Amino acid sequence: MPGPFTLGQIAARLGGRVAGDPQTLIRQVGSLERAGDGQITFFNSKKHQAKLGETRAAAVILAPENEQLTRLPRIVADNPYAYFARVSQLFNTAVTQALGVHSSAVVSPTVKLGKGVSIGAGCVVGDDVVIGDDSCLYPRVVLYAKSILGKRVVVHSGVVIGADGFGIASEDGRGEGPWIKIPQIGGVRIGDDVEIGANTTIDRGALDDTLIEEGVKIDNQVQIGHNVRIGAHSAVAGCVGIAGSAEIGSHVTIGGAAMIHGHITIADHVHVSAGTLISRSLTKPGTYTGFYPFDEHEAWRRNAAQLRRLGRIKSRGKKDG
Amino acid sequence: MPGPFTLGQIAARLGGRVAGDPQTLIRQVGSLERAGDGQITFFNSKKHQAKLGETRAAAVILAPENEQLTRLPRIVADNPYAYFARVSQLFNTAVTQALGVHSSAVVSPTVKLGKGVSIGAGCVVGDDVVIGDDSCLYPRVVLYAKSILGKRVVVHSGVVIGADGFGIASEDGRGEGPWIKIPQIGGVRIGDDVEIGANTTIDRGALDDTLIEEGVKIDNQVQIGHNVRIGAHSAVAGCVGIAGSAEIGSHVTIGGAAMIHGHITIADHVHVSAGTLISRSLTKPGTYTGFYPFDEHEAWRRNAAQLRRLGRIKSRGKKDG
Amino acid sequence: MPGPFTLGQIAARLGGRVAGDPQTLIRQVGSLERAGDGQITFFNSKKHQAKLGETRAAAVILAPENEQLTRLPRIVADNPYAYFARVSQLFNTAVTQALGVHSSAVVSPTVKLGKGVSIGAGCVVGDDVVIGDDSCLYPRVVLYAKSILGKRVVVHSGVVIGADGFGIASEDGRGEGPWIKIPQIGGVRIGDDVEIGANTTIDRGALDDTLIEEGVKIDNQVQIGHNVRIGAHSAVAGCVGIAGSAEIGSHVTIGGAAMIHGHITIADHVHVSAGTLISRSLTKPGTYTGFYPFDEHEAWRRNAAQLRRLGRIKSRGKKDG
Repeated sequence: MPGPFTLGQIAARLGGRVAGDPQTLIRQVGSLERAGDGQITFFNSKKHQAKLGETRAAAVILAPENEQLTRLPRIVADNPYAYFARVSQLFNTAVTQALGVHSSAVVSPTVKLGKGVSIGAGCVVGDDVVIGDDSCLYPRVVLYAKSILGKRVVVHSGVVIGADGFGIASEDGRGEGPWIKIPQIGGVRIGDDVEIGANTTIDRGALDDTLIEEGVKIDNQVQIGHNVRIGAHSAVAGCVGIAGSAEIGSHVTIGGAAMIHGHITIADHVHVSAGTLISRSLTKPGTYTGFYPFDEHEAWRRNAAQLRRLGRIKSRGKKDG
Repeated sequence: MPGPFTLGQIAARLGGRVAGDPQTLIRQVGSLERAGDGQITFFNSKKHQAKLGETRAAAVILAPENEQLTRLPRIVADNPYAYFARVSQLFNTAVTQALGVHSSAVVSPTVKLGKGVSIGAGCVVGDDVVIGDDSCLYPRVVLYAKSILGKRVVVHSGVVIGADGFGIASEDGRGEGPWIKIPQIGGVRIGDDVEIGANTTIDRGALDDTLIEEGVKIDNQVQIGHNVRIGAHSAVAGCVGIAGSAEIGSHVTIGGAAMIHGHITIADHVHVSAGTLISRSLTKPGTYTGFYPFDEHEAWRRNAAQLRRLGRIKSRGKKDG
Repeated sequence: MPGPFTLGQIAARLGGRVAGDPQTLIRQVGSLERAGDGQITFFNSKKHQAKLGETRAAAVILAPENEQLTRLPRIVADNPYAYFARVSQLFNTAVTQALGVHSSAVVSPTVKLGKGVSIGAGCVVGDDVVIGDDSCLYPRVVLYAKSILGKRVVVHSGVVIGADGFGIASEDGRGEGPWIKIPQIGGVRIGDDVEIGANTTIDRGALDDTLIEEGVKIDNQVQIGHNVRIGAHSAVAGCVGIAGSAEIGSHVTIGGAAMIHGHITIADHVHVSAGTLISRSLTKPGTYTGFYPFDEHEAWRRNAAQLRRLGRIKSRGKKDG
């Protein structure tokens, strides 16, 4: 493990201003509640001011407006959370798996591997896959044939990339089965610096490719349908589903368990709240929300019953509206 | 790869009518946007008429009413999307994995395998499993003991079939823990021509079997509880959950991230919209929907606050209703 | 398989009172619909009274108030379902996998295994993992480094424990990408008698540990974020997402596809209904619900349109409210 570093050394590397003893020696990061000797923590919200008072951390990272809330040695930075992330990267490697291909992995001889790639136990990598430099597949990842991954891509266990999209045609054209399968002949391309959480699935394209651009971060158990495009630096939280051919812009965030309809377009800088179903295109940046506010069960039951009568009541009352 | 075929040869095999040069040679299918030399595409919706004007495809499949929208060589068919699916199957195999059992798969000696079966790397197939002719398990599928698969079943990577259902009894009968586990001694039976998407789970029955009938198509990350029955030719989109002992009819479609309560019955030809929770039985065919319409965050916040007062307001106003 | 046992022997072991012939010989449990010769079933709800009349089971477990509904040999017990669970455990082992480490599993030499542990084919167990006595990993489970499992823990196929949590900091502090990864250096600790369903994911902590206490039962495809705590004897149904740092109490139940926001606290004995998003802390026991009641599509469309106008309508009417 790298380090230790003094506060002064940290600030020399990462910027920020030291208040208190710059010789304070730091060996690791820790949480406000549990950090102890030799550990640096961060303070981000006045909600946790009581915890700041009690912390046994050796030093704290905080914003200028909070500088006077503690007498501990501290680093003052405009964006304490991002600063903390960089400090943690000083002490900890982001990827923890050894380089090379594990002997139990099954890698097609036609695969092109960059330098510094790590492929964990039980991975299966299909024909003509390309994996860029310094990328890491944790154990039990499957890459179907022809998937293309950029550099520094991190893929967690259980991820499946390039399985067939859900392409079926209604035999009689009435939108129901029997079904005819449409062979899925597109691929998947994943940009540099993408991270993909455990048990997430990204389908190959039906005809053209599914595309995840550089810097996109995807949490666990996300489902990304065929021919989806996710623009650079977007983030997708856990349990999200993105249906086929949706086009998500750049710098978008999608909250947990949100659901994006297929064949719609979402503009750059849109933020979708958790639990929200986006059913049509969004052309303007902003935050969009749509989940049913929970209540005690009986109150919900009464409200939901009225909600189901709303169309009727209101149309009757239209003349007054 | 099979082919090439002329438009005339394609129509001779699959029906439809050729307009333009029947000698047009086709090597592959492609999308309206990207198809090029030697590729045939399809046109399905007037929304994409501009793209049809610009396509560089060699030929187009379209409906009679759209025949005059292009001068390209074309095949006129009543159900262009289904026709396209069949054309794609001419040029592409639906299953892309080699026959036989991969050397890294762990297959119990008691398993009965049909002819033409393909079992990918890292699969684990338990005792007394039966797999019908021409079925394919992509890498890293797990079939627990006694699972029974029909013919031409395709199972994508990461699928788990036959894990224990969520069978727990409340020790004190108050509907909360501590819990007593109920051994799950039923099985799973899967009919012919079923396809199951990546990382989907289908639990074994508690006492009797879980049953997926022929021709059912299931997308990725679907959860199917113990003793569920899904009738023939139904389709289940990604991220759907179907709770234990639900009985789904035939020719049903269930949209992405919909949720079906346990112990209810859904009639044939029902269509459940994406994001909808079905909380009681449905005895009539039709389309059923229930998701919160999203809005800009502030508008949602105001509406949701009123929604939570609806039961109170309306019951006060009942005398007027 | 253990048994057979007479009704008398069963009652001598498990309590309850026999009505009818105590020499009735039982070999296995079965459902009301399909149990036959030598099988015992249970009756739990008057809804199924017709089935009780027709059952061909050899004996029935039922509550005192239902004792006279059948003339079959029977065991009368206060909590028939829990009693049935125990009877089934007499005849069936809850865990069906052989002891020992399968030859295809990849287990770090630094792992500490208890007695009677079973590790299935294709499992990957990282450095410094601890697995308590009599625990079972079904095939293709991944435990990242330093995960700690108690005794009698059952983990189904496809589960990933200890993957990185979704810890990213917004580089410019505006809540959107580019993102800086925060190394995830906490662990996961899982108590005794926990069961975890297929393809569920439990992330390692960011700084401190993720914690699942004893007796917790988790269904399939559940996502549990970093630093979540789930209190003893809680149960989490399929497709649930629990966002990072949520604190769930003991004896809590969470229905299928419910979603719990991050950084909130849920009191002991809370019951969250299926499909409900819990967006703030719950300090009182009780049942909480919040899903949109489904309807026929056109009715839903009309109601949803009015719902989106509710804030506007009501604020205009405020003077009357």
